[in-house]
Amino acid sequence: MIGVHLEAGAVTVRKMAAPRRPKGSALIRLICGGICNTDIELLRGYYGFKGTPGHEFVGEVVESDDPGWVGRRVVGEINLPCGHCEWCKRGLGRHCPRRTVLGIVRHPGAFRELLTLPEANLRAVPAKVKTEHAVFTEPIAAACEILDQVKIPRGEKVAVLGDGKLGLLIGQTLRFSGLEVHQYGRHKEKLRVAEAAGIEARFSNKLPAAAYDYVVEATGSSEGLMQAVGMTRPRGTIVMKSTVHGTVPLDAAPVIVNEITLVGSRCGRFEPALKLLQTGKLQLDQMISEECPLADAPRAFARAQERGVLKVLLRGS
Amino acid sequence: MIGVHLEAGAVTVRKMAAPRRPKGSALIRLICGGICNTDIELLRGYYGFKGTPGHEFVGEVVESDDPGWVGRRVVGEINLPCGHCEWCKRGLGRHCPRRTVLGIVRHPGAFRELLTLPEANLRAVPAKVKTEHAVFTEPIAAACEILDQVKIPRGEKVAVLGDGKLGLLIGQTLRFSGLEVHQYGRHKEKLRVAEAAGIEARFSNKLPAAAYDYVVEATGSSEGLMQAVGMTRPRGTIVMKSTVHGTVPLDAAPVIVNEITLVGSRCGRFEPALKLLQTGKLQLDQMISEECPLADAPRAFARAQERGVLKVLLRGS
Ligand SMILES: [Zn+2]
Ligand SMILES: [Zn+2]
Ligand SMILES: [Zn+2]
Ligand SMILES: [Zn+2]
Repeated sequence: MIGVHLEAGAVTVRKMAAPRRPKGSALIRLICGGICNTDIELLRGYYGFKGTPGHEFVGEVVESDDPGWVGRRVVGEINLPCGHCEWCKRGLGRHCPRRTVLGIVRHPGAFRELLTLPEANLRAVPAKVKTEHAVFTEPIAAACEILDQVKIPRGEKVAVLGDGKLGLLIGQTLRFSGLEVHQYGRHKEKLRVAEAAGIEARFSNKLPAAAYDYVVEATGSSEGLMQAVGMTRPRGTIVMKSTVHGTVPLDAAPVIVNEITLVGSRCGRFEPALKLLQTGKLQLDQMISEECPLADAPRAFARAQERGVLKVLLRGS
Repeated sequence: MIGVHLEAGAVTVRKMAAPRRPKGSALIRLICGGICNTDIELLRGYYGFKGTPGHEFVGEVVESDDPGWVGRRVVGEINLPCGHCEWCKRGLGRHCPRRTVLGIVRHPGAFRELLTLPEANLRAVPAKVKTEHAVFTEPIAAACEILDQVKIPRGEKVAVLGDGKLGLLIGQTLRFSGLEVHQYGRHKEKLRVAEAAGIEARFSNKLPAAAYDYVVEATGSSEGLMQAVGMTRPRGTIVMKSTVHGTVPLDAAPVIVNEITLVGSRCGRFEPALKLLQTGKLQLDQMISEECPLADAPRAFARAQERGVLKVLLRGS
């Protein structure tokens, strides 16, 4: 079988041995993978990563302990927790200190013809959700996490800073969860996706001061946090979604004077994401810039880094 | 009468006219004032301040609309809100955008023989609380604000980073509110104050990693926030109390990966502070490094900036 290999800033496609299926895990054939900004960061070597990336995927179960899974189309929670620690017992395996993470931390990723994942991590894709949409489950779950962490009253105005892949999914997730979303970005074409979802899109060259009780920072840039602080009203909340390498500057005075709350937010539960996907309301087709076969992964990674490009998908065999 | 004047980095004592008492305000004779780090920052010109500083004070009401105040020993809330805006109506006048602030923003401060403050801002000092303790009401209220903003379960372990004036008051406030406080600092003598209050004091040269669900950052230094992030467990909360001039670096990745919440925290209600003062448990005498007459304000300000010095008090006439 073939799979993607990242090492020293280079993407290659290699022949590799099919993975051994551990007890409790399923062997899964890749149908479709999605390249995410985290994959680009792994490629750039920020986390000393070397191996097969990929954590956004849809696959078909080939082999499993529970025969009920075989032949089913699945997505999978990316954190593999130890199952025994305090965090795991609290149902927060996503914070288990001994966890591995599919395609990110000590667990080979999904960008290969066959992968393994514990059966407990699998979620069946509902029949009416097409594969090219289901591949967005993981980042939509990350968007849903915001609503798990912060109780935002229905109908409330929320600013989403950033019109990248994650920003657009966050905007749509919040909008279809009953909030009034204002999406701020720099790219006309990307903001059009937000508009197609009924979101008010605005250029981020002029940001309103102290205008929102809730701001989601998803710019992916190091200035985003300071901009978010400037847009937030006293006692307001900023959700931090930008994984930026290194330190970002924060002006502590307005955070303290205005008693602003900042909430770091990462992965989320898949259930609300799959529910949202089933509504069919999300504008996802417009977010797919290109589909490449797995064998063309080097080109796909190059494409994913081009300006103006949103999601690049990798097709399994 | 005389009063303190800050301008261009210099402290002077000047003759000045007694203030005119506006309707609804009380005329107050200064009994005792406390020099706070904010006053030092005003002196250093960070906020373009010029005028009479002072927001920590105990005074005696000389004249007021309500005759019930006359002759009483009082402390005063330092924010003077407009009374009409959305924030004021929500009881959050401390965030009123049109507020002035005693000795900080467009309202002459308390370091003068006579000052004025709206009667609504006054709080009577309970008879059994001595003046040298009551002068700590405002910073203790700022410490109490933490418990108004963040619900910390009784008996919970809390780390307080910093052993300066505010850090020590925060440590004591949390300890006597039923929490287990670990105070981290760099000064043996200052940490002794914490120990006298039954707090576990530790040197901050070796900070434990991911050890606390609640961390209060009160170092007053720009590295404090990063240190606090390192000490906080996944899903934990950091209360930001350090007003540091300019931007501070923040490593966004651990905040996001560990889904940490940061809460900016400023002034608080006086009621819980006065209640705490009435218990008589707070170790405050040890926090008073020096008392100077108002006329010696230049020396008092110099003293307040010396290493190892905690609170410097100014005596009214
Ligand atoms: Zn991702
Ligand atoms: Zn675990
Ligand atoms: Zn102060
Ligand atoms: Zn107001």
